[in-house]
Amino acid sequence: MSVPEAEKALRMNVIENVANIAKLDTKREIRRSTPEMIFAEGKANEDLLSICARMLRKSRRVIVTRLNDGQTELLRKKFGKYQLKRFSHAKSIVIKRRDYTRPRTGGKVGVLTAGTVDLGVAEEAVMIAQEMGCETFLEVDAGVAGIHRLVEPLKAMIRNNVDCLIVVAGREGALPTVVAGLVDVPLIAVPSSSGYGYGGGGEAALMAMLQACSLGLAVVNIDAGVAAGVVAAQIANRVARARTGLKGS
Amino acid sequence: MSVPEAEKALRMNVIENVANIAKLDTKREIRRSTPEMIFAEGKANEDLLSICARMLRKSRRVIVTRLNDGQTELLRKKFGKYQLKRFSHAKSIVIKRRDYTRPRTGGKVGVLTAGTVDLGVAEEAVMIAQEMGCETFLEVDAGVAGIHRLVEPLKAMIRNNVDCLIVVAGREGALPTVVAGLVDVPLIAVPSSSGYGYGGGGEAALMAMLQACSLGLAVVNIDAGVAAGVVAAQIANRVARARTGLKGS
Amino acid sequence: MSVPEAEKALRMNVIENVANIAKLDTKREIRRSTPEMIFAEGKANEDLLSICARMLRKSRRVIVTRLNDGQTELLRKKFGKYQLKRFSHAKSIVIKRRDYTRPRTGGKVGVLTAGTVDLGVAEEAVMIAQEMGCETFLEVDAGVAGIHRLVEPLKAMIRNNVDCLIVVAGREGALPTVVAGLVDVPLIAVPSSSGYGYGGGGEAALMAMLQACSLGLAVVNIDAGVAAGVVAAQIANRVARARTGLKGS
Amino acid sequence: MSVPEAEKALRMNVIENVANIAKLDTKREIRRSTPEMIFAEGKANEDLLSICARMLRKSRRVIVTRLNDGQTELLRKKFGKYQLKRFSHAKSIVIKRRDYTRPRTGGKVGVLTAGTVDLGVAEEAVMIAQEMGCETFLEVDAGVAGIHRLVEPLKAMIRNNVDCLIVVAGREGALPTVVAGLVDVPLIAVPSSSGYGYGGGGEAALMAMLQACSLGLAVVNIDAGVAAGVVAAQIANRVARARTGLKGS
Amino acid sequence: MSVPEAEKALRMNVIENVANIAKLDTKREIRRSTPEMIFAEGKANEDLLSICARMLRKSRRVIVTRLNDGQTELLRKKFGKYQLKRFSHAKSIVIKRRDYTRPRTGGKVGVLTAGTVDLGVAEEAVMIAQEMGCETFLEVDAGVAGIHRLVEPLKAMIRNNVDCLIVVAGREGALPTVVAGLVDVPLIAVPSSSGYGYGGGGEAALMAMLQACSLGLAVVNIDAGVAAGVVAAQIANRVARARTGLKGS
Amino acid sequence: MSVPEAEKALRMNVIENVANIAKLDTKREIRRSTPEMIFAEGKANEDLLSICARMLRKSRRVIVTRLNDGQTELLRKKFGKYQLKRFSHAKSIVIKRRDYTRPRTGGKVGVLTAGTVDLGVAEEAVMIAQEMGCETFLEVDAGVAGIHRLVEPLKAMIRNNVDCLIVVAGREGALPTVVAGLVDVPLIAVPSSSGYGYGGGGEAALMAMLQACSLGLAVVNIDAGVAAGVVAAQIANRVARARTGLKGS
Amino acid sequence: MSVPEAEKALRMNVIENVANIAKLDTKREIRRSTPEMIFAEGKANEDLLSICARMLRKSRRVIVTRLNDGQTELLRKKFGKYQLKRFSHAKSIVIKRRDYTRPRTGGKVGVLTAGTVDLGVAEEAVMIAQEMGCETFLEVDAGVAGIHRLVEPLKAMIRNNVDCLIVVAGREGALPTVVAGLVDVPLIAVPSSSGYGYGGGGEAALMAMLQACSLGLAVVNIDAGVAAGVVAAQIANRVARARTGLKGS
Amino acid sequence: MSVPEAEKALRMNVIENVANIAKLDTKREIRRSTPEMIFAEGKANEDLLSICARMLRKSRRVIVTRLNDGQTELLRKKFGKYQLKRFSHAKSIVIKRRDYTRPRTGGKVGVLTAGTVDLGVAEEAVMIAQEMGCETFLEVDAGVAGIHRLVEPLKAMIRNNVDCLIVVAGREGALPTVVAGLVDVPLIAVPSSSGYGYGGGGEAALMAMLQACSLGLAVVNIDAGVAAGVVAAQIANRVARARTGLKGS
Repeated sequence: MSVPEAEKALRMNVIENVANIAKLDTKREIRRSTPEMIFAEGKANEDLLSICARMLRKSRRVIVTRLNDGQTELLRKKFGKYQLKRFSHAKSIVIKRRDYTRPRTGGKVGVLTAGTVDLGVAEEAVMIAQEMGCETFLEVDAGVAGIHRLVEPLKAMIRNNVDCLIVVAGREGALPTVVAGLVDVPLIAVPSSSGYGYGGGGEAALMAMLQACSLGLAVVNIDAGVAAGVVAAQIANRVARARTGLKGS
Repeated sequence: MSVPEAEKALRMNVIENVANIAKLDTKREIRRSTPEMIFAEGKANEDLLSICARMLRKSRRVIVTRLNDGQTELLRKKFGKYQLKRFSHAKSIVIKRRDYTRPRTGGKVGVLTAGTVDLGVAEEAVMIAQEMGCETFLEVDAGVAGIHRLVEPLKAMIRNNVDCLIVVAGREGALPTVVAGLVDVPLIAVPSSSGYGYGGGGEAALMAMLQACSLGLAVVNIDAGVAAGVVAAQIANRVARARTGLKGS
Repeated sequence: MSVPEAEKALRMNVIENVANIAKLDTKREIRRSTPEMIFAEGKANEDLLSICARMLRKSRRVIVTRLNDGQTELLRKKFGKYQLKRFSHAKSIVIKRRDYTRPRTGGKVGVLTAGTVDLGVAEEAVMIAQEMGCETFLEVDAGVAGIHRLVEPLKAMIRNNVDCLIVVAGREGALPTVVAGLVDVPLIAVPSSSGYGYGGGGEAALMAMLQACSLGLAVVNIDAGVAAGVVAAQIANRVARARTGLKGS
Repeated sequence: MSVPEAEKALRMNVIENVANIAKLDTKREIRRSTPEMIFAEGKANEDLLSICARMLRKSRRVIVTRLNDGQTELLRKKFGKYQLKRFSHAKSIVIKRRDYTRPRTGGKVGVLTAGTVDLGVAEEAVMIAQEMGCETFLEVDAGVAGIHRLVEPLKAMIRNNVDCLIVVAGREGALPTVVAGLVDVPLIAVPSSSGYGYGGGGEAALMAMLQACSLGLAVVNIDAGVAAGVVAAQIANRVARARTGLKGS
Repeated sequence: MSVPEAEKALRMNVIENVANIAKLDTKREIRRSTPEMIFAEGKANEDLLSICARMLRKSRRVIVTRLNDGQTELLRKKFGKYQLKRFSHAKSIVIKRRDYTRPRTGGKVGVLTAGTVDLGVAEEAVMIAQEMGCETFLEVDAGVAGIHRLVEPLKAMIRNNVDCLIVVAGREGALPTVVAGLVDVPLIAVPSSSGYGYGGGGEAALMAMLQACSLGLAVVNIDAGVAAGVVAAQIANRVARARTGLKGS
Repeated sequence: MSVPEAEKALRMNVIENVANIAKLDTKREIRRSTPEMIFAEGKANEDLLSICARMLRKSRRVIVTRLNDGQTELLRKKFGKYQLKRFSHAKSIVIKRRDYTRPRTGGKVGVLTAGTVDLGVAEEAVMIAQEMGCETFLEVDAGVAGIHRLVEPLKAMIRNNVDCLIVVAGREGALPTVVAGLVDVPLIAVPSSSGYGYGGGGEAALMAMLQACSLGLAVVNIDAGVAAGVVAAQIANRVARARTGLKGS
Repeated sequence: MSVPEAEKALRMNVIENVANIAKLDTKREIRRSTPEMIFAEGKANEDLLSICARMLRKSRRVIVTRLNDGQTELLRKKFGKYQLKRFSHAKSIVIKRRDYTRPRTGGKVGVLTAGTVDLGVAEEAVMIAQEMGCETFLEVDAGVAGIHRLVEPLKAMIRNNVDCLIVVAGREGALPTVVAGLVDVPLIAVPSSSGYGYGGGGEAALMAMLQACSLGLAVVNIDAGVAAGVVAAQIANRVARARTGLKGS
Repeated sequence: MSVPEAEKALRMNVIENVANIAKLDTKREIRRSTPEMIFAEGKANEDLLSICARMLRKSRRVIVTRLNDGQTELLRKKFGKYQLKRFSHAKSIVIKRRDYTRPRTGGKVGVLTAGTVDLGVAEEAVMIAQEMGCETFLEVDAGVAGIHRLVEPLKAMIRNNVDCLIVVAGREGALPTVVAGLVDVPLIAVPSSSGYGYGGGGEAALMAMLQACSLGLAVVNIDAGVAAGVVAAQIANRVARARTGLKGS
């Protein structure tokens, strides 16, 4: 074998080793953690329909996010025979085949927002946490400008014994700091892109959450309701499985 | 008169008109608003001493800020015969001739900080407000991470009936938002340069204060204790003069 | 009582304590400081109408900001039986029931702009200050590029004896610095989002105002006419109440 | 009662209500969640000693972070009679009275770093998680530039069945994305301030983690080892308590 | 006279002094330097027309910039009886009454662009320099990527003996640095907002021009063709007047 | 000769010397490296057509990028008699006269993308590399979130023995770091403008690639598919010419 | 000749053509525009001395900038036999051989600063303008916070009939805007790195100057006294030569 | 097997697959591409020595970068018996055992800098390219401010027939754009951290290089001499191996 051939073989072999990881995917299926999601923004109608159809065949359920009105209508018409659940503020839709039953893990996720403007982001988190098997509790408009408005929502969260708390806030983003100083539930903070001028578009809120002088919280990116929902559901599901005696979790 | 001569005369005349404003300065003296201040940072010893001496002759009082230890010692030795008041956290000193009596306006300024680390900035504000004739009330370490720590300080402010409230906070800068949601005293928010990583050096706090979802507050630059003290004292003094029946204010 | 039950009770109790603050809200009503405002941008027609109607029942007056032309027309039609005051540059409208009488506090707020382009921001400030009971004085286009244009507006402000001055400027934002060097009225500076290229969108103006080498001014966020109006009215009202012998203020 | 008196009483009452929250603090003690920490940077020797002494009396244990060599030596001499545990890379020390026994919650936290340079941040997380009662597993230098180096560390984490995974990485910050794509344990990503030029000081890593195309992770600020340790320990402890049959968690 | 009255008189007097500067304006007229300009963007049709008409009455010439197609058409119809000169790339138009004769100062301004995309910015500069009485020379597409393309344009500039050179460039903005290394004519560099990604929108070009390792150039803001044209014409006119024996210049 | 004349002559001569570089252009033609490209964005229809026609006469082939649908249709109609190759994701088209034969250099360029969203950028690179005579290999959607998906694409690249590898990735931009750690082919990394919130628009990806802890890669600007294609083709062609015995390369 | 040889010859020829520009340098010498400058910062003592000595032999004069105290002392000792002129605020020194006579062009440059802190930057500009043959006029501390302080300095500038005006300002950088609104001399604005917090280090001043609502000014980089001095001297010298009847200018 | 056990086994298996990649490392050794490097900055003396000793045993050669003077002296003393090659501007040292012979690949890398200040970065690139077996050609101070200075260096590069060109530039970073417009060798651009004020520290240069209007270049991070050297050497070595008939490359 010549040197170049040997080298090529060597390089090939390196990559072959990586190939063994390919089996991960099937296993991921078994573990059934994060559900399949489709980002509709910018997708052509025919593409959107065909991807949804393919995923429904494979996974029996598909979540479509960032839908415009036309796309929503299109999915409703095309997949009318399936179960459809629409989350209008999150501009998302969940399509399930009739033979699909969503798992119930027993995990509990609370979602709290500083303003009504944060509802879209919050709904993304609620949707994904539900589809990952969690029970969710949503409380809207608990901002720090009127700190008393925070009382009832927080009481509801404690009463329901949530395993993880998602807190969405825009503008100055102070709510997660205040909440983390009052409760000791793991808290995922989500900056929303409300706000204007200097620090607008969620930048001030993101900074404030990363700088929070309270401890016990971690942060996801601006408007990242889905990312918050997934990590919160993973936490809640892990607690829930421990609760139900599955020692492995 | 030639064209160029005419033009030059014209230009000169334009500037002459501006010259009339020069009389402002003496009047400023009469109105006795903001006191003279010297920024010591980077000044040579002999320069610092001569400027102080000149100002003391002219105004009978001088405020020196951003002093290092050597400069402080120097001033103490040189001006030992005068009254000296040191503000150690603010690294500042007020030197007064014996025949100088600080005015008492009756204005009341409250200063609140989120942490002990903000004390230097707060003291700058206290010092300048006092020298502008105000009574000051300082409460330290009232941060939002433990919202209960806010109670006693705020009660003290209301009890003392302050005319203007300065709130200093670093990190996520949430304190002014929370306070402005609870009281209706005009509030000057000061971001302090505590904090680290993304949004550190006061950037997150400044953004958060400018984005505050509460109304009734305005902001000065990072660590700008002096700027906050001056505007707060102007507000308090204006109220105080109205209170004492001086209708002109 | 088991440990988990005890802990849950404990957590609940913590929140209960916060609940006591809930009584604040009614009191806020009594103190009658900041009026209710609705941000119209992005609201659906039916939502906008129902919120307005509800607030009118509760507070007899409502301020709606950031209205587009369609929304303005809608409000005009629907609430034609009420008093309507439109602020066209501020894209805002005030709706009052016939039995509502705006308070008159005696506070005086001056508003000065560097250019005609800043009129929208200035009008927001004027509107809110008026609704908080102040008398307002507006002078437009007093920019520093022609410093003589500043004379008549400033004279008007002094003549009217304003208690607080709002100065709106875009581009290089120099006007508040110059004005604060000439008068000793508390000054709220508002950067406007005019300007282009590097430092455009109000960034240069905001920076310049926070860096101002004059003392006696504080700043609100870019285009934040409402925020400036509220804090200025709070200052002016505080002075006015002192003037009318209400010692408590 | 005059109007000003009434108003003052009203304002006082508002704040009184907030006072009820003050009882939170004792409860926080009972819940025994986050331990007391002292940030040594910039503290004078006498201040540092007196604060440590006071906290040791009150809590029997104190954690001191960001210590320089002189301060470390000082604490060693002064508190030699207590148990001292030093974390040299984290520049931290834990001081415990002899009668103090650290709780053991059963929670398990894994900490993984991309490079040896990240060890200081990782140790901060390890220290705080241990002091909150968790068992910790640390694996260093598992960067993505040589993806095979990731194998053994990840195997160790799975084998030990960690409840939460902290991943520290600087430079391009890719490690948390890759790890979150391979395991389904809740993951806290910590950007470290290694790196240079554009995106240096942790900025690239922070951005990359917030943009991660994997799901199941949340982020804390640059070099925020303590913040990561607290939230990870909260998650792990919650799972652990569920595992041991405490249904309340 | 009471104290408040005295104080008010004092304040009034301060402002009166500023009033003397008001005479500047008429003089500005006489000096006839910068012509009147109207920024059309965002102006309503009726406003645009009335401002133009007023200015034409007063100054006999008006320059309107940032026109959209509709506005251009409108002006053409309305002011058809006047002389109209359109600068289509600059989206500008100059309207002159028949009795108006543009001054000819003898100043010479050269304008050079790196690409054809920079033509709009260049034309703004050409237009204003012409209206300020200069002769202008425009050369387009002389970018540094093909450094030979620079030869003929530069030769034309030297041959015409320009008094000031304006160089417009986007992307990496290297052209002014290279040109300033070859000629010793005063050079005004204008970054244009071409370019994309990191440093796009003119940011890279602005930075590069401010960092230029050649000496002999100064910079205006991104796309600021008008600002460049005015300062270049001032320089050229000053030289021209010296050339024609007007010693005053 | 007078001094001014001498100086003018001197200046002219300086530029004349630069003129000698003008011969470069023809040579560039001979070397036949980078093909002519037209950026269609913002061009008027008639301009676009005339530029294309002129270039086709001169170079027999022209590449048009950043086309909108209308422009694409226009070119198709107008140049139907020529060979047209459309790259729909790259919004580009290559027009060739029938007598034009694309060179075949033997260079091999591989293009790998992290997601399907990066296809447009990748196609730009493919197109230009092909037109520069290279054979190209494209593999899409090999992101690091599922590292196993990387195996087959990388194997294909090694099997085809590519001389240079282009890797396109958005979001956290980790793919080039991982790939450069596995293979030792020169790698050009292209950040794509996917991603949102903090670090969106390609900023996080660009930073991550410049910070990459792997060695052996260089970077082009965000979405710069063409720039990546040109430099990769230059590398591949240089290798190919060496391979075919042209020692000069 | 083989293809590779031909290609190499071709490439060589391309570069040869560029070589013709090399004659520029001697001519630059003749034109005597910008003098030689040495940037001392970071240079070793022996290197600094040898470069100075070499330049003195060649040009008979050398300007050394950014000197520390040790370097200044070194130059003084070593070059004591030459004429030395020290600019202490600019930390610069000009060394001239006895047989060197500085040219006198008749150009006049005015330099104005907003504060005393800007003196170092101003002196750099003064020094270089003088060495380029100009007469200079320096006025310090004419800031806009007390606009009356501007009068005398501006009168001096007009009286001396300066050909170009350099205005240095830090903090909010408003001075050039105000000055350009009062005079019609070409104005070079220099932001200085004074200022703190948001917009500190000269950023606010740079932005403000680029955004200036006055026309007739151009900008150099932060603290770029030398760059301002060179471009101002070029302008003044061009005017001066026109004044003295040298038509070529 | 219980569900938790099964799940744990599953997770373990996933990671096991990744373990197969571990064999990569040995192969990397065989391919002998990038040499081992140690970053000395911040390393303790004993650590530095022990790492060097270990690597020398394993690889017989080690490259140490970012050394301070003390560390350099230490290595010289400790490893005096080995061959040591110091690169003083790059603050680096190469240590080789006597039995080590550096490979000679025949690859040729040219390095060009805009200024003498860029020499440190250039030397890093030279060193690493040499250690990867390349012949290197270094030319310093070929900046665009005097474009004629570029001639001889470029001629040298063409004459030596370099396979890849590294161009280092700070300030406005124009040199790579100009060079890439003149030659068609693959070009790696390195921004250096020279420069000051806006765009200083290499930011302007990095932006300019990413925006370059020339094609045929790619960029590495600020001051990243090592990164540039590695990718350039990979390119050159690939060409060289093709040249010597090793078809595999």
